[in-house]
Amino acid sequence: MSERDSRFRPRPPGRSAGGRPNTKSGGKGGRPVWRDHEARPDGPVILYGWHTVAAALNNPSRTIRKLLLTENAARRLAEENIDTRVTPEMVRPQQIDQRLGPDAVHQGLFAEADPLPAPDMATLAHGGMVLVLDQITDPHNVGAILRSAAAFGVNAIVTTARHSPEATGVLAKAASGALELVPFVTVQNLARALTELNEAGFMTVGLDSAGESNLAALALKAPLALVLGAEGKGLRQLTRQTCQTVARLDMPGEIKSLNVSNAAVLALYIGASKLGLMA
Amino acid sequence: MSERDSRFRPRPPGRSAGGRPNTKSGGKGGRPVWRDHEARPDGPVILYGWHTVAAALNNPSRTIRKLLLTENAARRLAEENIDTRVTPEMVRPQQIDQRLGPDAVHQGLFAEADPLPAPDMATLAHGGMVLVLDQITDPHNVGAILRSAAAFGVNAIVTTARHSPEATGVLAKAASGALELVPFVTVQNLARALTELNEAGFMTVGLDSAGESNLAALALKAPLALVLGAEGKGLRQLTRQTCQTVARLDMPGEIKSLNVSNAAVLALYIGASKLGLMA
Repeated sequence: MSERDSRFRPRPPGRSAGGRPNTKSGGKGGRPVWRDHEARPDGPVILYGWHTVAAALNNPSRTIRKLLLTENAARRLAEENIDTRVTPEMVRPQQIDQRLGPDAVHQGLFAEADPLPAPDMATLAHGGMVLVLDQITDPHNVGAILRSAAAFGVNAIVTTARHSPEATGVLAKAASGALELVPFVTVQNLARALTELNEAGFMTVGLDSAGESNLAALALKAPLALVLGAEGKGLRQLTRQTCQTVARLDMPGEIKSLNVSNAAVLALYIGASKLGLMA
Repeated sequence: MSERDSRFRPRPPGRSAGGRPNTKSGGKGGRPVWRDHEARPDGPVILYGWHTVAAALNNPSRTIRKLLLTENAARRLAEENIDTRVTPEMVRPQQIDQRLGPDAVHQGLFAEADPLPAPDMATLAHGGMVLVLDQITDPHNVGAILRSAAAFGVNAIVTTARHSPEATGVLAKAASGALELVPFVTVQNLARALTELNEAGFMTVGLDSAGESNLAALALKAPLALVLGAEGKGLRQLTRQTCQTVARLDMPGEIKSLNVSNAAVLALYIGASKLGLMA
């Protein structure tokens, strides 16, 4: 895992959160998470690979800072009428290899970009679903979750885990373009964020194999926040206590727990079905 | 990816398939896949990590050939009354690192084992579900699929892709013990295997985002074979033609395709629900 725990890393100068004023938090627990700079999008973001970079270039909300292209990739973008938006630096494939390592399938495209702006709570509380990830860090899993979130029309992913730019590249590749569709909201204190979701009218449901009820048998209502914990560790105690309900996914076989991205997609399917979003 | 394409690799001497006579296939297309040595379990198998090795030691159907343990791991097995079944070789953690590389979380346990015997068609056709994987090779994805298959009580996974022992180790770790619960059947010719499943009474349903009907709206019946293709490539033409139906997974968001293990768990959930296996 090439991730760094960056919770205590100071934010680089000039990068305020989602365009909001970079005021200092009181730090006394009284200020709502969503309104100060603790709630911020994950970033900066490294993007590579055809699908990922093309989706970013096609997204007007995504600010591109730097673009490296091979001749072939530049030709393909031109053929598909995709505007590069910044002047690309023309490179040989090996120069992108040097940045990403030899295993990354970059297809001649590499970009550095700003994170998408974080949505505000009023927009989120309007309806539908959000997904809350409690210390899930593996970028392959988070990328797959992001892709499923986009497939089920999730409004945002709320997470405590900040990813390094390198990990964001892996995550974006695994998400296959979905990073442009579902904003990440990174918070320092998940229990406080959940409390705010509760106060904003969300039904907050934690997922745990020892949950008191079966998700598929629960009466779910919008706006719905589904909360998933890291593999092995599960939901932290305070996260669990702050959820209105803790539910399990009943399954008929001998194994009772799934890979976290598999659990996420199942919870999203059940949630979307029960909220009437599938029609 | 550390996999080798071993379809043309000769089988090592003395390793016949699941105890069946090692007779030669006619190779003329007339012999059923399931009865000759083309249908065989995936192997040999490298296992590491606490959960994976403990599950193998607890599985009487699993033949262990070699067991490397650190002192701590041996003590933990003894405390939990898990029989090592073969005389373990006591090693330092670094000796297992040397075999697996520095990134493998082996927790002091490493085993070499035989694959589980492949189930015969008559047993499979009795009811329930099988999962058919058309050239899906990524061991993390296959491992996650295997875990979900065990969670939904799938009877077997039929696959064309043989994994190297090293890839099987990654797969087994991702499967978190499920390799002991769901047998792999490796076939050379998937279309022929699907034809046999059709003849044995299976409803064979391919999954594809361009499928003609929505899986959740189909009348499914047991025994059911759900067929998944590799990411990007999808189902091969002949695979698609041999399935009785090709279905899609309808989802409300902008992205219409999922990570393959996410698609698999959703198909299994829908299949198990419609076959009445969830009660």
